[in-house]
Amino acid sequence: MSLPEPVPSEHAGARFLAEIREQPAALRRLLEHEGEFARVAAAARDGGSLVRFVGHGSSDNAATYGVYAFGLLAGWTALRDSITLTVYYGATFDVSRSIVLGLSQSGRTPDVVAYLERARAGGAFTVAVTNDPASEMARAAEAILPLAAGDELAVAATKTYVNQLAALALLAGHIAGQGSRVSDGIREAADRLDEALPSLEAETQALAIPFSYVGRMFVIGRGPEFATAREIALKLLETCRTAAAPLTATDLAHGPMAVLDPLFPVWSIASRDVSLSAVQDAAARVKQFGSTVVASGTAAREIAGADYYLPVPEPKLALLSPLLSVVPGQLFAAALARAKGFDPDAPRGLTKVTLAR
Amino acid sequence: MSLPEPVPSEHAGARFLAEIREQPAALRRLLEHEGEFARVAAAARDGGSLVRFVGHGSSDNAATYGVYAFGLLAGWTALRDSITLTVYYGATFDVSRSIVLGLSQSGRTPDVVAYLERARAGGAFTVAVTNDPASEMARAAEAILPLAAGDELAVAATKTYVNQLAALALLAGHIAGQGSRVSDGIREAADRLDEALPSLEAETQALAIPFSYVGRMFVIGRGPEFATAREIALKLLETCRTAAAPLTATDLAHGPMAVLDPLFPVWSIASRDVSLSAVQDAAARVKQFGSTVVASGTAAREIAGADYYLPVPEPKLALLSPLLSVVPGQLFAAALARAKGFDPDAPRGLTKVTLAR
Repeated sequence: MSLPEPVPSEHAGARFLAEIREQPAALRRLLEHEGEFARVAAAARDGGSLVRFVGHGSSDNAATYGVYAFGLLAGWTALRDSITLTVYYGATFDVSRSIVLGLSQSGRTPDVVAYLERARAGGAFTVAVTNDPASEMARAAEAILPLAAGDELAVAATKTYVNQLAALALLAGHIAGQGSRVSDGIREAADRLDEALPSLEAETQALAIPFSYVGRMFVIGRGPEFATAREIALKLLETCRTAAAPLTATDLAHGPMAVLDPLFPVWSIASRDVSLSAVQDAAARVKQFGSTVVASGTAAREIAGADYYLPVPEPKLALLSPLLSVVPGQLFAAALARAKGFDPDAPRGLTKVTLAR
Repeated sequence: MSLPEPVPSEHAGARFLAEIREQPAALRRLLEHEGEFARVAAAARDGGSLVRFVGHGSSDNAATYGVYAFGLLAGWTALRDSITLTVYYGATFDVSRSIVLGLSQSGRTPDVVAYLERARAGGAFTVAVTNDPASEMARAAEAILPLAAGDELAVAATKTYVNQLAALALLAGHIAGQGSRVSDGIREAADRLDEALPSLEAETQALAIPFSYVGRMFVIGRGPEFATAREIALKLLETCRTAAAPLTATDLAHGPMAVLDPLFPVWSIASRDVSLSAVQDAAARVKQFGSTVVASGTAAREIAGADYYLPVPEPKLALLSPLLSVVPGQLFAAALARAKGFDPDAPRGLTKVTLAR
């Protein structure tokens, strides 16, 4: 009744790693489509000012970032809408003044497509953000924004996630009349990432061995970096079988902190913005429980007393920090999976396109 | 540098258990305030149709339920709003057509109070839902809805959480012109809970011993029961130091499933509604990984092949199932904490009112 263990080959994780390395190039490819973002933004401005994101897994993590991108750039309320409430429970809402962004790498996630169809029938302005502009979701929506990340073959998403972040920032930027500021920022972030990748690979490789026997972890972030915490935790769950749970710095204080002990490390994402002091406070509380702290993010060095530091370069546009700060987590997952004898290209029991409800 | 371990007394967990047992009485006390709910509902109907919940910890879990209560009863879009975005990042939104519900047992959570003050200044209709109608949050809001749960002394919330669920359903019911249907339903659910408590206590006690060495768990639910999954996971984290993570049945399929093994149990909440087949499918997938499955909820018996069954009675109003289905999780946390030698009344490192950002 139990699943067979695949035997990892010497090429285990090669696709996953190649796609992580390809991310700067994928970001530049997205920018070739800036004209489409400008056109969709113009249409969205006429469509309302409530944004509803729908997606699962990494796409839902990207939506967590989207709430900040739309809030901070455009002053628009955005929410990760409940697909279940509409598609399964049949709740009906007035969506005539809503913009709906369907997020799906494959464009084939059945309930996301079903949500978009209903929302479009209800008068919402529907946009498919997808790596496959010929997909079912793209056909269901009024407008299409291509992710242009190139084919993603590893089961665990990497470059499509980073391009989703960039796509949401770029759309919000164009809505706010700051499109070129954001696209310049994405181009600059891609350059910073290219420079940082080799040293990040070496540093995360070295961290994999001491974490090989870690069964439980928290990943904490705040503000736009909570999306990063969710995405890093998901990579660790699916590729390394580490029970990693994402929390905001505040969530941690509201109960979960009690579980910590020296065998329960906390990965802290610290970026240089108004949330930094909250993350610093949280990391200091974590140290009182004796936990190992990994400090990552653009302001990693400002987490006092961390056991490991994995800083990333600071992009000119602070809101784009999550494009960089997820990368040490992806690379760490790749290295840790290999150290544990797993194949991160093909995690046990998962497929690239999830059709399960 | 590490925290001292408190020595649990023979009375360890007595408050927590007493407050769990008191929940039917607490629900009846809430219903004594139905007139206030009817008045606030009338005012809310004039205030708009977008509901923003703000709260942390158990209050935020209750908000997850509120999204369903407002969606299904009133057809209103409700969201768990980002406190951080408004209070720390200073984002400004047009909230003039929003209803804001501040959720805080103590009414003293600083950033929830700050959010309410800003929203009220921005023209939102602000309501404080709190166990302390004399609190700072109550003073900051335009209207007050008392939880009337009676003093809650254990650090881990129980009766205030269940009364938050009931309060959100009651408010949404009155907004939808179905107030008495919901209040009758709450009264009936309280009766069902009174009848079920003794046997649930015995059954969860028996489950504590085999789970004493479990370090990692998932708690899955769907629809209105995702709130239950979040709340049970939080109880296990804070009182038992078990790394329990909440997931929807769908989340599980989108990656985290890969982490499962025979030492990684899954607590599944199955209620008799349209989400049941999705939870059944998820539990079947979990069994393929060899994991132990605990089936709980009103339709627990319909999870084929579960290792343990903890069914709860089915209330007449299906939307109120979460008022019952959280209780086996609370009782299990109480029993497991005692089995592991912890005091669930006073988890290490936590205080009743969390002032941390």
